[in-house]
Amino acid sequence: MEYTKMTREDLQKELDLCLKLYEEEKAKGLKLDLSRGKPSPAQLDLSNKVMDTLNSESVLKSLNGMDLRNYGGLDGIPEAKELFAEILDTQPENVFAGGNSSLTIEFDIIAHAMIDGLDGCEPWMNVKDRKWLCPAPGYDRHFNMTEHFGFELITVPMNNDGPDMDIVEELVANDPSIKGIWAVPKYQNPMGISFSDEVVRRFASMKTAAKDFRIFWDNAYVVHDLYADKQDMILEIISECEKAGYPDRVYEFTSTSKMAFPGSGIACVATSVDNMKDLKACWTYAMIGPDKVNQMRQVLFFKNKENVEKHMQVLANMLRPKFEKVLEVFDRDLDGLGIASYTRPLGGYFISFDAMEGCASKAVAMCKDAGVVFTNAGATFPYGKDPKDKNVRIAPSFATLEEIEKAASLFTLCVRIVSLKKLLA
Amino acid sequence: MEYTKMTREDLQKELDLCLKLYEEEKAKGLKLDLSRGKPSPAQLDLSNKVMDTLNSESVLKSLNGMDLRNYGGLDGIPEAKELFAEILDTQPENVFAGGNSSLTIEFDIIAHAMIDGLDGCEPWMNVKDRKWLCPAPGYDRHFNMTEHFGFELITVPMNNDGPDMDIVEELVANDPSIKGIWAVPKYQNPMGISFSDEVVRRFASMKTAAKDFRIFWDNAYVVHDLYADKQDMILEIISECEKAGYPDRVYEFTSTSKMAFPGSGIACVATSVDNMKDLKACWTYAMIGPDKVNQMRQVLFFKNKENVEKHMQVLANMLRPKFEKVLEVFDRDLDGLGIASYTRPLGGYFISFDAMEGCASKAVAMCKDAGVVFTNAGATFPYGKDPKDKNVRIAPSFATLEEIEKAASLFTLCVRIVSLKKLLA
Repeated sequence: MEYTKMTREDLQKELDLCLKLYEEEKAKGLKLDLSRGKPSPAQLDLSNKVMDTLNSESVLKSLNGMDLRNYGGLDGIPEAKELFAEILDTQPENVFAGGNSSLTIEFDIIAHAMIDGLDGCEPWMNVKDRKWLCPAPGYDRHFNMTEHFGFELITVPMNNDGPDMDIVEELVANDPSIKGIWAVPKYQNPMGISFSDEVVRRFASMKTAAKDFRIFWDNAYVVHDLYADKQDMILEIISECEKAGYPDRVYEFTSTSKMAFPGSGIACVATSVDNMKDLKACWTYAMIGPDKVNQMRQVLFFKNKENVEKHMQVLANMLRPKFEKVLEVFDRDLDGLGIASYTRPLGGYFISFDAMEGCASKAVAMCKDAGVVFTNAGATFPYGKDPKDKNVRIAPSFATLEEIEKAASLFTLCVRIVSLKKLLA
Repeated sequence: MEYTKMTREDLQKELDLCLKLYEEEKAKGLKLDLSRGKPSPAQLDLSNKVMDTLNSESVLKSLNGMDLRNYGGLDGIPEAKELFAEILDTQPENVFAGGNSSLTIEFDIIAHAMIDGLDGCEPWMNVKDRKWLCPAPGYDRHFNMTEHFGFELITVPMNNDGPDMDIVEELVANDPSIKGIWAVPKYQNPMGISFSDEVVRRFASMKTAAKDFRIFWDNAYVVHDLYADKQDMILEIISECEKAGYPDRVYEFTSTSKMAFPGSGIACVATSVDNMKDLKACWTYAMIGPDKVNQMRQVLFFKNKENVEKHMQVLANMLRPKFEKVLEVFDRDLDGLGIASYTRPLGGYFISFDAMEGCASKAVAMCKDAGVVFTNAGATFPYGKDPKDKNVRIAPSFATLEEIEKAASLFTLCVRIVSLKKLLA
């Protein structure tokens, strides 16, 4: 029965029961963690063969004759550019294949725009009231990065098909100091939703007051489907921007981090040929070339998009039951109570949970008191502050199934307690 | 006989002879390159076993229990910090072990200072007349980097024991807009000389008008000795700065690039604990961690400083004859003519050659016309312009002995021709 329809007496009874259960759980001395959006060791084991793709007997040359071991090749080996182009459905000439982190490439591009400016405009450093759009719930590391660079963060609500584009369009059309927007278009962190074709097209075609406005399109989960037969598809943004007459509007990112080893994969930025020229003209001062040996390791391991998809299904077979376990517990404990909603993603790394207003941080704190760590409530919003204190990011990838069952059960119990207290207050 | 003491008639005779020889050389259609400061494929082969240090069966954990494959470890694995500390004669807590390029770390630190400022001072971006000291001849990529960041480059003459410290001290004491200086303290690029203890101590203890003045101490050739029994030794700069009361003055860099594979080694910055805190506070927004798997590969290959030195002697056995071949040809063709001087380094990657004033670019151009490429004359000076047009950087590492013999012989011939023409003009 829905909590909101229960009498105060019944609510109190339910609360007493829940508090008793909570004390029992607390007494168990749990030590669990559902906060970390990273693969489990067992999942990483499924990619260990990436370590065997090259050895001292291998031919260490790329297609273009370059010695992988030596200096050179600013924008990566042709094979890595080709692999990323296939994964992102774009062309190799649009791809800069780099080092082990897409986050670093994002940071470096913003630093470049801060210091040098883009499209002949004023360096962002000199735009004193610079602002950045942050669709939320979203990825805390994105928000923190633009905060670090001195941008005022403007929250844009997320719908189930992407950011609220009415609001985005209105904002960017009128304020030339809005220089960019974060976007995780597929299996968004943390909602797990994907952007509709309409949303992508509106991103590509909207009018912006800033000539040097940029979309940071972090396609981190582009091949991270949980199901072989049910998958989200999104429009390819680079060609959409081109068609709309704004070819230089977008930088797209992805990496092999969550395809094999997070710390030692390779990352890329894909963008217009003119933006590529601009980035290379800057980065030729920053580096001689990426780790071409590791680029070749990834290429030999993943081969092509078809093989990538096969490999991702092997990983999905380990990840999917974890997502389903969370949802099974949530459904079992919360269905029909009217106090929570949560997403059922077809891919990515997260489930987004919404409690009643004002309940998220208290529920997470109660979990922590009982030894179970969730991502800080608020972390999915700019400045770490969820104005409605509703959202919690659930990260099931690192824990075992058994740990997930226990952690999710404690979480639902805490959500019930906090909700009951709110209704009784 | 010294050219300067010859009669015009004898000079003309000598010139005619040289020109005849030059035409013969030119007719051979040579295609040689002594411009590239990178190891030869045969030298790289000596490090191929770095590829075998890890495979899918290896234990992929660091000392601190961290899974090398996963996210984390902003400042590198303890083993890599330890190895670099040993090589640089400092402490692991002073070391940030990063990705494949020390140049990138240098760039990132300057970008950080440009945007955020150092020591609570104004961001360098806001210092409109910012300047940088460039001891020259020096490394073109250093000079180009600070030029890219909008610094006015101020040339400081190089002596045989380091930069002219009278000039350096005078400049930094009086101009608060001088924010830094480049320094390659051991086997300097391109001179191959090393800084004397007095020079190092004056670097550490000089008074600077800028509170946020920094030394970029690129110790790229710290273990790159050509001889087992004759080696330059330099003072350890971090502790010297500390002793002098300026602990935060220096960032020191090195990498395993020219110890194994240039493109896929690991690099570091070593600096005071306070500077480390400052860098980590910035870079936590830029990355989750370096490629820890590759850090472990390097650690397992190099093990410790003693083993590094053994390995470097294996490389030296291949490099040394190349240096000696260049010098043999130079001595054979130029000794006693009074038209050239050149260094005889005990390590590093370069020989520095000085022709008569106004002769360097012409000699290099003549070589190029005959199919032999040397580093552009002027490249070793700020803005690519050698005011006296004397200096040429000779890079013998990449070519074979046979190629070096031919290229160096052509070079001395061209130097003679250009010098003779100058004397006859």
